[in-house]
Amino acid sequence: MRCINYLINTQSIFICGQKNTEKISMSTTGKVIRCKAAIVWKPGGSFSIEEVEVAPPKAKEVRIKMVATALCGTEMKMLKDKNLQHQHYPIIMGHEGAGIVESVGEGVSTVKAGDKVIALFLPQCGECTSCLNSADNFCIKLKQAETHLMSDGTSRFTCKGKPVYHFGNTSTFSEYTVMDESSVAKIDAAAPLEKVFLVSCGFSTGYGGAINTAKVTPGSTCAVFGLGGVGLSVIMGCKAAGATRIIAVDINKDKFEKAKEVGATECINPQDYEKPIQEVLFDLTGDGVDFSFEVIGNPETVAAALASCRESHGVCVIIGLIIGVQLNISGHLFFSGRSLKGSVYGGWKGRDGASKLVSDYMAKKINLDALITHSLNLDKINEAVELMKTGKCVRCVLLL
Amino acid sequence: MRCINYLINTQSIFICGQKNTEKISMSTTGKVIRCKAAIVWKPGGSFSIEEVEVAPPKAKEVRIKMVATALCGTEMKMLKDKNLQHQHYPIIMGHEGAGIVESVGEGVSTVKAGDKVIALFLPQCGECTSCLNSADNFCIKLKQAETHLMSDGTSRFTCKGKPVYHFGNTSTFSEYTVMDESSVAKIDAAAPLEKVFLVSCGFSTGYGGAINTAKVTPGSTCAVFGLGGVGLSVIMGCKAAGATRIIAVDINKDKFEKAKEVGATECINPQDYEKPIQEVLFDLTGDGVDFSFEVIGNPETVAAALASCRESHGVCVIIGLIIGVQLNISGHLFFSGRSLKGSVYGGWKGRDGASKLVSDYMAKKINLDALITHSLNLDKINEAVELMKTGKCVRCVLLL
Repeated sequence: MRCINYLINTQSIFICGQKNTEKISMSTTGKVIRCKAAIVWKPGGSFSIEEVEVAPPKAKEVRIKMVATALCGTEMKMLKDKNLQHQHYPIIMGHEGAGIVESVGEGVSTVKAGDKVIALFLPQCGECTSCLNSADNFCIKLKQAETHLMSDGTSRFTCKGKPVYHFGNTSTFSEYTVMDESSVAKIDAAAPLEKVFLVSCGFSTGYGGAINTAKVTPGSTCAVFGLGGVGLSVIMGCKAAGATRIIAVDINKDKFEKAKEVGATECINPQDYEKPIQEVLFDLTGDGVDFSFEVIGNPETVAAALASCRESHGVCVIIGLIIGVQLNISGHLFFSGRSLKGSVYGGWKGRDGASKLVSDYMAKKINLDALITHSLNLDKINEAVELMKTGKCVRCVLLL
Repeated sequence: MRCINYLINTQSIFICGQKNTEKISMSTTGKVIRCKAAIVWKPGGSFSIEEVEVAPPKAKEVRIKMVATALCGTEMKMLKDKNLQHQHYPIIMGHEGAGIVESVGEGVSTVKAGDKVIALFLPQCGECTSCLNSADNFCIKLKQAETHLMSDGTSRFTCKGKPVYHFGNTSTFSEYTVMDESSVAKIDAAAPLEKVFLVSCGFSTGYGGAINTAKVTPGSTCAVFGLGGVGLSVIMGCKAAGATRIIAVDINKDKFEKAKEVGATECINPQDYEKPIQEVLFDLTGDGVDFSFEVIGNPETVAAALASCRESHGVCVIIGLIIGVQLNISGHLFFSGRSLKGSVYGGWKGRDGASKLVSDYMAKKINLDALITHSLNLDKINEAVELMKTGKCVRCVLLL
């Protein structure tokens, strides 16, 4: 515990700028904390490390000392894709992370100070019709994220006197953040946060997309389009479900080694062929693949992935983020019985899924370590952005 | 049996121009039969009743005396929709029908002369990877229909000295037709052909779309867009599966009475609202419907039907024919986990499904009678086209 907490004035502000992994001082409870965060000030801007004030949690809210986070594809897209950029700036992004509860607001009953937790962009309120339906995971509270504020319509962050917007119900690119209780999953106290933070989004989304959404069957043939961290997690899910042939597809052949390491049986680069990739996959498989996964978020790739499936029972799962774009797909592709499915957080219910997957990691049932290729302090987040762009970095854990 | 068979020359041609319901003369075996058929001579043309010659069945083929057939939505679309028109004219359309086997070619083992049969646009060869997969029904032989010829690349029909193209592996708008054995389902000898012909396409496609493809669940809420014969069959399927709320949607309110008769719990006309229909359905249901069915074949309606579904586990099944068109759908609709599924022949395997459904009809488990609202002789097929256009006619059985 190297956090320096000291009262600087009558507003009860604590400054916490150092590393903190395993212990939390309870002395900050109810006070404003001053700490470091990576802020994006305008659409398309880069990250700027700033000192921010983090207000204490209100009722049903939890303040968390973040320990590990990472850039996921969503942030990478938001930095460059105008379709995903909004007017809520300055903003503290970050939706994949894990930490330790620093304090809780009134009425919080599921976590307490000192608990290790996973931050969840997908809440699980336990009360909405989705939460009460076993086949459903799209908790209504997810929509809170659209406001980029807490449920009372205000922010818990300020910087240079200005309120700073939240992101994804999480805002993990801050040493301290405040979340709704429904977005916080308590996990095994022995779990290494710098590994298991991956169940916060990337791993769960991909792995569950194969296991829960596609329901990959033993002996099946799968194709995975896009070999980032989520795509690799899809491959792990396909393998765990018993697929015998897992074809990894990417235009960056540097990603093939890792894909094979986690379970791909073969790797192909569409740029090596003159034919459209769906025809290549039909040539390779005879009848198309049983399951395909689009893990890029490109409308053209979605169409190709769907066309790569078996005409009758083929299932294509869209895992890449395709918000803000139109899909243009030949109606003919559906004539024979193909399915196109969306998937959010891999079909897991937020808190239940995160806790279970961390337990699975502790029981060595799943492998997260292979996905973490780099490590930097949060201060170096812009370097992490560049690493992600190369494709050589799967996940760069950002330590806080 | 009022068919007049007489030898007119050394080519062994038999003329059969009269009604024939229950018995078949075996004397025609191996001969060319001259009979009446409804031909369309050019794209967008109307039907013309002509005398045609029907060659005897070759190996693995079956010649059938058709007894009952009907115009289905596909023919209605082909008559007016340039996207569905091809260059294979003259043609004998018709893919929904039942009849009695007149003769069989060499090697046919599953039916014999005198058997009552259902004509199937969706074959079941029993040998392809789809037929061998229990989850699959898209028999590879379906593609034979794209040639508009028999599997040896020739036609069994001629008219005025010209070969006439086949349609849908069936060509039921002819007193006699020739089909591949794989497109012929033997049914209960006691089945009334003028009723059970509906399992050939319309009923099975709709009913199975709900039961097999969507897998409608007990207590669920469904919306059915388009209340033709197939849409009404979807309603029956939803009801049979235990849906508690079935919302029928059509812009022709004349169809509402029949929809309620077969199981709709409420009927709405999009033209009665200023809001988009998907918003109306959210207003009515709170969270959207669990299952929606597009039974029109309109890309805009597909998008609306998908958007009407519950954000997470909502399933939209495309049953209307959308070949030749592009679907333009917001990617956002998939973000939360919705599914868009194609369905062909309601997910039933061709011959197995037809035989089972006829047995179900005989056991009074399903109701086909409600769908047959009119009856005409094949000669009056152009009148049937006009009846179908009004929307007051669900199915007009055409007797041969």
